[in-house]
Amino acid sequence: MNVTVWNENRHEQTNEKVKEVYPNGIHGAIADFLKEAGYDPLTATLDEAEHGLTENVLNETDVLLWWGHVAHDEVSDDIVERVQKRVLEGMGLIVLHSGHFSKIFKSLMGTTCDLKWREANEKERLWVVSPGHPIAEGVGEYIELEKEEMYGEHFDIPAPDELVFVSWFQGGEVFRSGCTFNRGKGKIFYFRPGHETYPTYYNKQIQQVIVNGIKWAAPTNQPMPVYGNAKPLEDVPGE
Amino acid sequence: MNVTVWNENRHEQTNEKVKEVYPNGIHGAIADFLKEAGYDPLTATLDEAEHGLTENVLNETDVLLWWGHVAHDEVSDDIVERVQKRVLEGMGLIVLHSGHFSKIFKSLMGTTCDLKWREANEKERLWVVSPGHPIAEGVGEYIELEKEEMYGEHFDIPAPDELVFVSWFQGGEVFRSGCTFNRGKGKIFYFRPGHETYPTYYNKQIQQVIVNGIKWAAPTNQPMPVYGNAKPLEDVPGE
Amino acid sequence: MNVTVWNENRHEQTNEKVKEVYPNGIHGAIADFLKEAGYDPLTATLDEAEHGLTENVLNETDVLLWWGHVAHDEVSDDIVERVQKRVLEGMGLIVLHSGHFSKIFKSLMGTTCDLKWREANEKERLWVVSPGHPIAEGVGEYIELEKEEMYGEHFDIPAPDELVFVSWFQGGEVFRSGCTFNRGKGKIFYFRPGHETYPTYYNKQIQQVIVNGIKWAAPTNQPMPVYGNAKPLEDVPGE
Amino acid sequence: MNVTVWNENRHEQTNEKVKEVYPNGIHGAIADFLKEAGYDPLTATLDEAEHGLTENVLNETDVLLWWGHVAHDEVSDDIVERVQKRVLEGMGLIVLHSGHFSKIFKSLMGTTCDLKWREANEKERLWVVSPGHPIAEGVGEYIELEKEEMYGEHFDIPAPDELVFVSWFQGGEVFRSGCTFNRGKGKIFYFRPGHETYPTYYNKQIQQVIVNGIKWAAPTNQPMPVYGNAKPLEDVPGE
Repeated sequence: MNVTVWNENRHEQTNEKVKEVYPNGIHGAIADFLKEAGYDPLTATLDEAEHGLTENVLNETDVLLWWGHVAHDEVSDDIVERVQKRVLEGMGLIVLHSGHFSKIFKSLMGTTCDLKWREANEKERLWVVSPGHPIAEGVGEYIELEKEEMYGEHFDIPAPDELVFVSWFQGGEVFRSGCTFNRGKGKIFYFRPGHETYPTYYNKQIQQVIVNGIKWAAPTNQPMPVYGNAKPLEDVPGE
Repeated sequence: MNVTVWNENRHEQTNEKVKEVYPNGIHGAIADFLKEAGYDPLTATLDEAEHGLTENVLNETDVLLWWGHVAHDEVSDDIVERVQKRVLEGMGLIVLHSGHFSKIFKSLMGTTCDLKWREANEKERLWVVSPGHPIAEGVGEYIELEKEEMYGEHFDIPAPDELVFVSWFQGGEVFRSGCTFNRGKGKIFYFRPGHETYPTYYNKQIQQVIVNGIKWAAPTNQPMPVYGNAKPLEDVPGE
Repeated sequence: MNVTVWNENRHEQTNEKVKEVYPNGIHGAIADFLKEAGYDPLTATLDEAEHGLTENVLNETDVLLWWGHVAHDEVSDDIVERVQKRVLEGMGLIVLHSGHFSKIFKSLMGTTCDLKWREANEKERLWVVSPGHPIAEGVGEYIELEKEEMYGEHFDIPAPDELVFVSWFQGGEVFRSGCTFNRGKGKIFYFRPGHETYPTYYNKQIQQVIVNGIKWAAPTNQPMPVYGNAKPLEDVPGE
Repeated sequence: MNVTVWNENRHEQTNEKVKEVYPNGIHGAIADFLKEAGYDPLTATLDEAEHGLTENVLNETDVLLWWGHVAHDEVSDDIVERVQKRVLEGMGLIVLHSGHFSKIFKSLMGTTCDLKWREANEKERLWVVSPGHPIAEGVGEYIELEKEEMYGEHFDIPAPDELVFVSWFQGGEVFRSGCTFNRGKGKIFYFRPGHETYPTYYNKQIQQVIVNGIKWAAPTNQPMPVYGNAKPLEDVPGE
């Protein structure tokens, strides 16, 4: 299975705190624990040619992870279209945290993907509401993060096909923080945590969820449906 | 309740058969039975200024019906964006037949909305699979249409929030032909039948479903959620 | 529309605090605000003959509300079966608070309907996660209850057809507190708040949600589907 | 992974045609192709002690397949309860064909599970409507069965969590023939084909779907949620 970790990689260049938490970038930290989990991930970032997402890279990618925040607008529409096409053809997509506002996620959802937010070093507790779901495997009843950015409802997404996690925030909000969606032949998992100034991606439970998500989102070996004009399979008088 | 019936209105100008079936346009035929049902619908067509969908018209519209086919590409992106915004704010949207390939439907779905199709004068039977759904009220167990265009699976849409009708076609295909979707505050109903060369919109059961759909899709009296930066509702130590 | 409010009505007989909060019983308090909303509700309680739910009463009931807690086991299996049959035929059912453990709800869900709970006079905030849903109409972004019993995830129900409210609790839990389910031709709404020692049913927003739920759960005018052996609608060679 | 194939095994004793098609019973035919797929399945039948479903057998079973028809009523309520408990704890359940009317399926669904049916040697075509679903992997666009019993809508089940197949029947009906449900920690797959007088379980595509279903329904390694009275995780003033 080929996994590609895409990261905007801008905060890491300009913000000392982020640089300290993620010296090899958020993509680097994610790639590290994926290697420990037995994957051999590729990484790709905004400032590479074609954002590192060439036709070739995408065609070889089974599951793509996406982290972006301040530079959503700099992602080229052509590349977004290319990623969307691949998702509809079966490539898995894991959208992380502020990726909720990425062009690719908004295109696939059809909604604003807007939400409430607050940076106040507050506690988040992600409750498993689908204990039989493979994405929740081995996680226990909840994940507690001492400090995270708050995201609050209403989260303007279509009703998820499956709701896996719901977050509690210290400041009084809740959030549908682990959501799956099927689009075309592709599986999409949105997972909320991961603000750039907190060491969230070093948390073992968070890592477990992302690894589970990758397994869950893997493409199946099923040909694309045939679309367009179709001959009848039975006699049709009007023919 | 204000209903606006939007129609591309092109086949009616160029195809004698369509002109004969729908002398006042598909929009005219739909407006007629909506009047009988007690509505006072507006109609709007592609070739009007702003396609007849000015800010004013859309702001006053509670439920918009959409029929298009050969000229999807001529619908301006700005107007599509305007309609999408209004749907997310709560305006109901009924997408009819070949409207599955309209820009507005594809934008709201995030998928290709592709399907199989065939024009062979064949029989369609729409089975009610959600007999308690308000959109199926008064319809009976199925609707039989002697001659319709075939649309077949796979229909590339997100799993509908509710599946109301499934079609059987003489030539051997099936189709999810009555589907609801919630996007933002808006309710969307996709209803398959209505090829331009058949008198489908004169069928009383089809009319009943469309009227039911309008009632179901009506906006509620609930303010828009507040998005963006939010003050905590509880004490947060990190503040 | 005929609404019947069913209440176990036991705490009200034995617990001074409950008696004080609900001097006419929980059913009385609910019936009062339904009258203000223009309904003419019937009430029925456990200790009446047939628990007040005769064939006649149920056949005339469009929407049934259900509150029970300490005496779920005393509800006769025959009456439960009768109610279930009516729901599947189209009668709406609103299950309130501790009714999650009633025989009727468990029979319709097929799961244990178990959950976490705690009585600690803590704050609950019910967030609207489906702002376009008719059950949320006029409620605003959230409902705040100063003191309620806590119910926490995992709530062992099937994934609801629609999730309308998610609760935040002061003690750190979340709960899917407004859930809809379709079973047969019937619509079911589970609504969490309403512990017997708190004046929850006097809260105007809670009343609004229950009235909205009744409207939403009303039966439609659609005949029951026909089941069993069926003649073919098309020629079948093997006949 | 431990798979148990349960079969009523009555038609095979009394009906010469069934005996001819399935000389080792339907369970035997299913066990055979599961062995080819690398499993070491157990079989169990109605007339064994405890129907072959002892506590021990069920505790060791990861996925249970269920075929029953004429003797649903002879299945003991205690065993049904035992199976239901195991499903809610995470055991996968594949319900085949006429198992739609089994006590275990009806208990888990909460509805009548009724449908239309006809034995007329007619053609069934199962269309894949979720081409990315693991249960559809390797199946192609549809499965064609030359002769099968007809099952027609309305099928009185809760809306499935995922709809994988929709059947077309020669006689004019459609049917939601591949449906998944999550109940508790358990995954349930209902798969329609498999009337006792047809060689359906020798069809390679049907076998593929059942093997896919078993993989999909496998339990995950996640402890059961904790239910009941819960200490607060945060300070609660009312404590």
